[in-house]
Amino acid sequence: MSDEFLVVPDPDDPMLSRPVSGVDQDGKPVEINVVHERPLTLFLNGQEIVTMMTIGDHPEMMAVGYLLNQNMLRADDTVTGIDYDEDLELVVVRTQRETDYEEKLKKKTRTSGCAQGTVFGDVMESFASISLNRDARLKTSWLYALMKKINTAPSLYLKAGAIHGCVLCHEDRPLVYMEDVGRHNAVDKIAGYMFLEKMSPHDKIFYTTGRLTSEMIIKCVQMQIPILISRSGFTAWGVDLARDAGLTLIGRARGKRFVVLAGEDRIEFDADMSQVAEEDRRHRRKATEMDSA
Amino acid sequence: MSDEFLVVPDPDDPMLSRPVSGVDQDGKPVEINVVHERPLTLFLNGQEIVTMMTIGDHPEMMAVGYLLNQNMLRADDTVTGIDYDEDLELVVVRTQRETDYEEKLKKKTRTSGCAQGTVFGDVMESFASISLNRDARLKTSWLYALMKKINTAPSLYLKAGAIHGCVLCHEDRPLVYMEDVGRHNAVDKIAGYMFLEKMSPHDKIFYTTGRLTSEMIIKCVQMQIPILISRSGFTAWGVDLARDAGLTLIGRARGKRFVVLAGEDRIEFDADMSQVAEEDRRHRRKATEMDSA
Repeated sequence: MSDEFLVVPDPDDPMLSRPVSGVDQDGKPVEINVVHERPLTLFLNGQEIVTMMTIGDHPEMMAVGYLLNQNMLRADDTVTGIDYDEDLELVVVRTQRETDYEEKLKKKTRTSGCAQGTVFGDVMESFASISLNRDARLKTSWLYALMKKINTAPSLYLKAGAIHGCVLCHEDRPLVYMEDVGRHNAVDKIAGYMFLEKMSPHDKIFYTTGRLTSEMIIKCVQMQIPILISRSGFTAWGVDLARDAGLTLIGRARGKRFVVLAGEDRIEFDADMSQVAEEDRRHRRKATEMDSA
Repeated sequence: MSDEFLVVPDPDDPMLSRPVSGVDQDGKPVEINVVHERPLTLFLNGQEIVTMMTIGDHPEMMAVGYLLNQNMLRADDTVTGIDYDEDLELVVVRTQRETDYEEKLKKKTRTSGCAQGTVFGDVMESFASISLNRDARLKTSWLYALMKKINTAPSLYLKAGAIHGCVLCHEDRPLVYMEDVGRHNAVDKIAGYMFLEKMSPHDKIFYTTGRLTSEMIIKCVQMQIPILISRSGFTAWGVDLARDAGLTLIGRARGKRFVVLAGEDRIEFDADMSQVAEEDRRHRRKATEMDSA
């Protein structure tokens, strides 16, 4: 495991995955690793907010991040306690400020990628007031280095699949790598980590395996991270929101390729593309050989 | 377009995607197609139920399917009208039976893959009472034929990516192919189609590009379809639920490979695997050549 990461997935944690027996395409017995999902009910100061399905690591960070990304916790709030009860599958966040989100909880929005939330209304209001750091930079050499480090780090994705990952990065260094069955849980864990560790978002880069839907853009902008990279594709509204917010939006980042649909002025095209292409070809050949084996 | 399908995506519908300009990894201008997502607010008999983010095709089917899969509409309910207002972005479903789900709407669950719903409580109760057709069969030759037909059918996935697909199938024939930014919307559209067209689920096969999470299993069982196939992976709870319900659960179906983790007794391993392997190798070689070009 690279010492570049501050937080990495623990694929060997037996709480997160387990081997399951089945048969393959030839009818032969196989055993594969499968991730767990379990409910976690979140309370804020005595009020039940939501039940989330999660792999279950970092419940405190996920709870805080969820509340932040739903505008139920403010950047200047003082968190006086976070109690996680594994047996009861619940987590309680307590704040100095008294809170009551009864009205907000009545308004339900099912968003496209995942999650239930109040994406309209107050979240969109705060979205419009955020200015992202114009001076943040992304060198393409960093982007290729990040993807290589992230793709080769031990992860539940490599062990069991069926999981999304998000990584908070600085320049060419991946810092915080979170995974979850719901990609928005992984985002929320990173938001919670940044809040609890008082980490600045303004010089950071956010990498996700998930698609660049409206909700992903909104969360990234709310977290005030100026650059968002995904191995997956875009939606039209996501692109519109990124352009409105001045977010640098990069999608379809696989191998040597990527596409920038917003904020390209933050990008420095410094990578040696002939070297990148050669490495990409070598990687593809190896993958094809392994798949055909 | 194959005449095998009763319903297929319309990738040329300008409402569903649009070209967007950006730059690629070399800083050169590119134009790519990107899917739309838009809000659609669902009312049942005057009560606001939820706002969904969707690509926007088949709003009536999606509305009916959502209500069915949330147990807000019963199989024996008479739908007296469905009104879709494109400008107001809302759809109203009216039933003979009076409905009031105020209490149910207060209980919120954020599920792992997607969607907000009341997965626990009444949905789990009805889940336990469903028996799936034991006599349903899946020949592996059908499975390979289905995957080939589905993967080569014109779709928004091929045109723009960043979208999930679900296909209702009978033997080796794909019947109803629905796509959406949220995979649960695609499932709901098929549930609505089956209800409105009075199509029997008992001899059908359900194919999805999405992961086999608890919610996907629950929806498939609620729809009473005995066989579920995905190109993606499993979660542990999904496997447990499939085994409890007697659902045939096939995942990681790509190329010649797949894994069965529940209900393997419905499968007939009749495919000529040497032919399947040869076709798979040819396909991989072509894909690698195209990607390296």
